[in-house]
Amino acid sequence: MGKRKAGHGFSEAPEDFLVVRPGFRLADLDTAATAGFAAGKSEGEAMLTQRDPHLADLQERLFAEGKGGGSRSILLILQAMDTAGKGGMISHVVGAVDVQGVQLAAFKSPTDEEKKHDFLWRVEKQLPGPGMLGCFDRSHYEDVLIHRVHGWADADELERRYSAIQDFEAHLHASGTEIIKVMLHISKEEQGRRLTARLDDPTKYWKYNPGDLSERRLWDSYMEAYQIAIERTSAPYAPWYVVPADNKWYARLVVQELLVAALERMDPQWPAPAFDIEEQRKLLAAS
Amino acid sequence: MGKRKAGHGFSEAPEDFLVVRPGFRLADLDTAATAGFAAGKSEGEAMLTQRDPHLADLQERLFAEGKGGGSRSILLILQAMDTAGKGGMISHVVGAVDVQGVQLAAFKSPTDEEKKHDFLWRVEKQLPGPGMLGCFDRSHYEDVLIHRVHGWADADELERRYSAIQDFEAHLHASGTEIIKVMLHISKEEQGRRLTARLDDPTKYWKYNPGDLSERRLWDSYMEAYQIAIERTSAPYAPWYVVPADNKWYARLVVQELLVAALERMDPQWPAPAFDIEEQRKLLAAS
Repeated sequence: MGKRKAGHGFSEAPEDFLVVRPGFRLADLDTAATAGFAAGKSEGEAMLTQRDPHLADLQERLFAEGKGGGSRSILLILQAMDTAGKGGMISHVVGAVDVQGVQLAAFKSPTDEEKKHDFLWRVEKQLPGPGMLGCFDRSHYEDVLIHRVHGWADADELERRYSAIQDFEAHLHASGTEIIKVMLHISKEEQGRRLTARLDDPTKYWKYNPGDLSERRLWDSYMEAYQIAIERTSAPYAPWYVVPADNKWYARLVVQELLVAALERMDPQWPAPAFDIEEQRKLLAAS
Repeated sequence: MGKRKAGHGFSEAPEDFLVVRPGFRLADLDTAATAGFAAGKSEGEAMLTQRDPHLADLQERLFAEGKGGGSRSILLILQAMDTAGKGGMISHVVGAVDVQGVQLAAFKSPTDEEKKHDFLWRVEKQLPGPGMLGCFDRSHYEDVLIHRVHGWADADELERRYSAIQDFEAHLHASGTEIIKVMLHISKEEQGRRLTARLDDPTKYWKYNPGDLSERRLWDSYMEAYQIAIERTSAPYAPWYVVPADNKWYARLVVQELLVAALERMDPQWPAPAFDIEEQRKLLAAS
């Protein structure tokens, strides 16, 4: 991946410097970083909007390729602590492409039916179809994160799940899905500020869930679970990116760029016509 | 509905002058009309963009209401002849709100499994959840349109379906879903121009389907089927709007306004907090 030019506005391609490599240590990363991007918030926000049409064009090509019989797709997996900005990422970055080409799935607590099946069962059903940009708001990673933190799965079961995830993602990639896994990484202090902001704004009360506080108290355990899950499931076919997310504008710009880079590598093409153009012109003129 | 102020840029509210009333005759309507909107295309397009944030704000309130326990939702049903602009409507109007609040369903030819069930079976499964903006790209109306045109359903069966649709939509409305039914109305000549344009542009070949020509030859039968279906299923709880669609910008502006009007009538409110704010502040400070 190192040969690609740096993205729009970046001095270096985010996929190169944010991808998780051997030896990675989550605890060492700065959640407030804006690495690779010299300008500030207002330039960043302007850049995001300027870049939307390019992402939308690439996505439309992928969508068209799917309609034309292609089987490729993209899957963006978003994981994060509460308030880290998954929702805003979806509305501002993913939401900039044609909604008809987007397949969103938000994974909440599993239903009774889902609990009866293996943890990947509900995930399989939400995989993006041909030509689609799939986006997971949480995912099968919850089964090695919250389950580890709360001890709902023991060590053996967690091992089984890491392996199952590796196999699942390898097959998914082999069948034509480009996988981008993102952890939006905020500090505990930043989460505190964002939760406070929700309590200060009547238009945001609905986003506040008292239950989030009990997870917040387990912050360190979560960071440990993320460290291990990311280590165990980083692969060339399904890379993890840990994106500093204290600055929402920066995180959005990075994820937009990760999507653009993946789509540029895929280089989807407008399908050739599956009909004789001159013949259709004549039939149309006579109709 | 007559008491609402005319929408942004309109001299009269589109829902008032485009709603189907007794005595309506599809054949008399001008597909190129831009009624109620004095300005032209460039002003219309600028207006659409200016109005997006208002629609998005209303939609977010509805979404929040749904998260807060509310059961209301909106369902936009789009019907049209090929090339009339359903796709563009979805990407440019529906696509302007938060993608997380949108539930899209495109109804293609039914699958073998779907054919084994009554025609409303697959539709029920795609109804918008609480707080959602549902959008149907085609719908159960195909079962009284293409089925009538091709004689796949006889007169008795069509009668049964009109009644079934009435009951279905009445119950849907009673359970909290605001229904907006839109026929995007283009002329046969305009369809000819748009099909030709698809044959002239390699980035549009994938949108061209030779099979569309056979339906085009049945234009008059389709118009008759629309006339009858619209007559039989127009109701105060599920009104039909026939939107002149030769001018895409106008049709989009109108449908945006229909959505805005419906949402303003619904007047969704930010949910009250389901927790004690001061208590949460203290718990948060201590966490």
